[in-house]
This record gives sequence, C-alpha cells and structure tokens, in this order.
Amino acid sequence: MPADPSPLPPPGSTSGQTAWDRTLRSPWRGLLEGQPVGIVGLGLIGGSLGLDLQAAGLEVRALVHREATAERARQRGLASRVATDPAVLAGCGLVVLALPLDRLLDPDPALLQALPPAAVLTDVGSVKQPVLSRWQTLLERNGRGGQAGLFVAGHPMAGTALAGVEAGVAGLFRGRPWVATPDARTEPGALALVRALAGAVEARWLTCDAADHDRTVAWISHLPVLVGAALLQAADRGSGAAGLGDLARALASSGFADTTRVGGGNPELGLLMARCNREALLACLDGYQEAIGSLQELVRNERWQELAGALLEAQRLRPGFLSPPPLPPGDPPPPQG
Amino acid sequence: MPADPSPLPPPGSTSGQTAWDRTLRSPWRGLLEGQPVGIVGLGLIGGSLGLDLQAAGLEVRALVHREATAERARQRGLASRVATDPAVLAGCGLVVLALPLDRLLDPDPALLQALPPAAVLTDVGSVKQPVLSRWQTLLERNGRGGQAGLFVAGHPMAGTALAGVEAGVAGLFRGRPWVATPDARTEPGALALVRALAGAVEARWLTCDAADHDRTVAWISHLPVLVGAALLQAADRGSGAAGLGDLARALASSGFADTTRVGGGNPELGLLMARCNREALLACLDGYQEAIGSLQELVRNERWQELAGALLEAQRLRPGFLSPPPLPPGDPPPPQG
Repeated sequence: MPADPSPLPPPGSTSGQTAWDRTLRSPWRGLLEGQPVGIVGLGLIGGSLGLDLQAAGLEVRALVHREATAERARQRGLASRVATDPAVLAGCGLVVLALPLDRLLDPDPALLQALPPAAVLTDVGSVKQPVLSRWQTLLERNGRGGQAGLFVAGHPMAGTALAGVEAGVAGLFRGRPWVATPDARTEPGALALVRALAGAVEARWLTCDAADHDRTVAWISHLPVLVGAALLQAADRGSGAAGLGDLARALASSGFADTTRVGGGNPELGLLMARCNREALLACLDGYQEAIGSLQELVRNERWQELAGALLEAQRLRPGFLSPPPLPPGDPPPPQG
Repeated sequence: MPADPSPLPPPGSTSGQTAWDRTLRSPWRGLLEGQPVGIVGLGLIGGSLGLDLQAAGLEVRALVHREATAERARQRGLASRVATDPAVLAGCGLVVLALPLDRLLDPDPALLQALPPAAVLTDVGSVKQPVLSRWQTLLERNGRGGQAGLFVAGHPMAGTALAGVEAGVAGLFRGRPWVATPDARTEPGALALVRALAGAVEARWLTCDAADHDRTVAWISHLPVLVGAALLQAADRGSGAAGLGDLARALASSGFADTTRVGGGNPELGLLMARCNREALLACLDGYQEAIGSLQELVRNERWQELAGALLEAQRLRPGFLSPPPLPPGDPPPPQG
C-alpha cells in the first residue's frame, strides 16, 4: 500500500530539470516517489507512459514478451530497465498492465507469480467490467486475496493509429481522460496511487462505475469503429458494382477520410472491443440503425423540413462531445448519472 | 468563346511578383488573361476563388446579394470589384456561379439577364446532373440557346466547416479535385477555359459523366453526412436514456469527433445534397444499412473470425480512398468506369 502523500518539496529544492519543474507542485510526487513503477507491455500506451514517467523523474521497469522488443525498447529509452524476465518487476510499488485485452484477460501465469504481492495493480484496457471481475478472481485464486483490493481498473483514453514498440510518444495523455472504475473492494490508497499516475502524465482524472464506463464507451468509442468500417465496405462495394470504384477513390476527400478513420483502424483492437463489450455494442447498433433508418425515411418521403431539423440537431449536439475543458487537478469527477 | 491558348510569355518578362512567377509556365495564363473573371456569390468557394485568382494576377469582379456582404468582401479583398448590381459582370469572359444549390437551381432572373451572352459559365455545386440540365434549359428558354454549350457543370471538391463571406481562404483548392461533367453539347473551348480556372488555383482536374459524378459523391460525400449525423443522434439518445449523457460527453475523444465531423456540419448543405441527389443517396443508404446490419449479425452471433476479416478489409480499403497523388498538369484525367 502506498504511503499518504508526503509534503511537497520546498520551492527551489529541485534539480532544475524542466519535467521536474513543471510538476513541482503536483500532489502525485509524494505518492509515486521512492519505488519504481512497473509497466507490462511497451506498446502505444505502455511505451508512452514509460516516456512520460521517466520525463517526470520516476524510475520505470518494464516487462515485455520478446527479446527483440526489449532491445528496441531500450534503444528508444521507453523504460529505465527492460526485460523479458518477470523478475524485473520486483520492488515495484505500482504495476501498470499495459496489455491488449485478450492477454489481460488471460495473463501468463509467470506474470501473475512475479507481481510484487504488495504492489498496486492497474490496467489500461478499453473495457472495464470483465477486466475488474477477472482480475479480482485471478488474484483470489492465486492466494492473493488481499491484493484484490489493490487492483484498480483503469482506462487512459488516448490513442493514435499506431501500435507496437515504435508507437509510444511523449505527451500522449496530456489533457486526455484517464478513467478509473473502482468498486466496493478497491482500497482508497490504491485508487489514490493510480490517480497520482494519471496526474504525473497530466491526464484528466475521472472515476465511474465499471458497467457505466462500458456502456458509455460502446456509444462513443466502439460503435464509431463499426460505423466507419461499414462505410468503407459499403462505399467500396457500391461504387465498385456501378463501375465507379476508381472515380470514388479519386473524389474521396477529407470528409470521407475523417468519417472512416477509426473504422479503418487497428482491426485487432476493434475485434477485442466487440468481443469484450458485446452486449452494450449490440444495444448501440440497434439504436444506431434506428437513427439511420429514420433519416432514410425522411429522405425517401421527401420530408425535407424534418430532415433539416435532424441535421440541425446533429450540428448542435456535436460541440458537447468535443474535448471538454480540462479539469483542474484535485477537483472531484463531474457528476455522473 | 475563349480564344485558343496564346503563346506563353517569354521567360523574364514578368513583373517579378511571386504569384506570377509561380504560374509563369502554366498553360492557363493565355486562356484567362485579358478579360475579368466574374464570381457570383462570395461564400467559402467564391471567396476562396477570388483570393486565389487575384493572387495569380487576374482581375475578379463579384456579384453578391446584400450590400453588407459586399462591404465586408471589399474589406477582405475577395475581388477587385464587388457589387450587388448584376451589371458588375459586364465584360467578364468567364462567370463562376458560386451559389448554394437551391439558388443555383432557381436563379434570380436579373442574374440571368446580366450574364454576358458570350461568357463561359460554370458552377461549383456538389450535384451535377440537375444543375447541368436545369441551366441548359434556362439558357434556351431565355433566348440564349447558343450559350447552353458554354455552360460547364463543375465541382471543386474542397471545403472547411465555415460558410459565408468570412469563410474564403487562400489556397483552398490546391491539390484538391476539380471535377467537370461535360456532355455532348459542351463546347471544347468552354471546357478548356474552366480547366484553366482550375489550373490557376492549382486544383487537380478531372472530367466525368454528370450522372456518374452524382452517384459517386453520394457514396463518398453525401452518405458520410447522414452516417455521422445518425451517430450523433444515436449516441445522444442512447447515452441519455441510460443516464450516461454527461459521462459520454466527458469520455468522447478524437475518434468520435472525427467520425461525426461532416455529420455535425452545415445542415443547409446536407439538406441540399439530399434533396438534389435523393435517388443516389437512397441507394447508398440501402447499401450502408446492409453493411452495418451484416457487422451487427457477426457480433450478435459471435462470429469473431469473420468480424476480424471485415475489420481487416476496412483497414485495407481505407488508404485507397485517401488523397491520391496529384496529377501532373496537362495530363489526361484517369480512366473512369
């Protein structure tokens, strides 16, 4: 368990490094300092986290699957120490499981064994209910019942089109939401430590119920993948069937590119989202098909005034879904329904 | 009718202005020089065109609807001369009708009367078959049958989220497609003049059949508007019904923003596209609903391998729809089906 926040260092006591200066007054420093942070997996999220945490002056130890990845991660400086042997995590007070959802839900037994028994554990998966329940069970079954309350299900909502050891970039989490979904078992000290982690990379901290998280991201994150993928398939097939495939490709502009960006993104990620959040996604697809079907009826029946109203509604809705103003550090999460 | 291209000016004969230098060897100069270019409407397209044509050293005369617009357009320098009196177009060898589709299809009789009888006419509307047939009929009915062959239906495919007299920006058309849809009546000299116009603003020139154009843009430009609008409506209603509307807004990230950008755009534009291209759009909506319905069936029946295949197909399709390499000036348009 982490200690309570230690007092902030006095002004002027720093080494003068920019990263340190920037975060001098951050409440996370006292919580995170003193023990290395472990990261399991150095893909987009793990690698970016490693870069930012080191820039903030923390020691980062990383576990990866293959030696070639470890070698490249060392060249890129993604962590202070990188190894394929889970023993690298010994001594870490916080371990971030930055694994794809499938490997997170079915982790290597050697990884489980190597996790320091007193460490706070957190993950970065885009679906939270299955992860939280799976890890609480896993820890109990492996004689680590006491550690179940130290598992904090988390979801930093940041991404690029890239994946793998080359993908990590500095500053990925700045201003982006970092959601945690604690439940009744979650120890407050463990939650505070993960909040400190999010603060160290300048993310916006939010907490909510795991089921609420999963139903919400189905709408704003998982449904758009299928919406865009269907558009790519339909435009390809429809224009191709009319002998207009080349013309469609020549005329497609930024509107088509933007609408299909996530739909034409990493297929493994899309598949895992659908598998792990299937019921919520099915409900979204029902709602979406109703919405697009209604618009089609308006076009079919030439109900132009109603179509104008629907498009105006869409225009008015969108700004509410764009990046909200950043939450000041230390503020409580916004009210959730 | 425009004259044949005059010989290119000899090297070194220019005034040394950057714009002139940049286009010194362009074949468009001989065609466009000597007579002012008229622009009707100074919104996003008309205003941007005015800026670029003047930067290329051409004289631009513009007609707008309201005096307040004219005043602002003069302040912004969108044309050499701006007026609300159609007589401003006298002497123009080429007139660009940069009007919204509804006003283009039902133009002010005073505008029709004021068009110089020997001028080449072109438009910038996003639907071409109704515009081409309407203007050929209009010109015939107004005793201008000879001018019907001088009407070139055109569609510069460039845009931003903005509209109105403040929207015009320099360089909007650079590298973007400028499509013309000539038919059997179109005079080759008129087509060459509009091609010169596109060249002057560094657009990529393409020609195709008007019906092919309209069916194609339905897929890649009009369908994405309804796809994104439906996503905004569904996400708002679905998350709201579950009491998760605030959380959805807090968690929505760049993926949601991109997927809904054109769907949450200018509603008047979306409405006009749907009205003027209704049949093609309805066919696209059928194809789209089939595609999204198929994806839903894969999720519902947990056919994960097929879903992985569909998402991989989408990922492989998308690059073909991103900006193609620019066509070298003077090259023939790519083959079209």
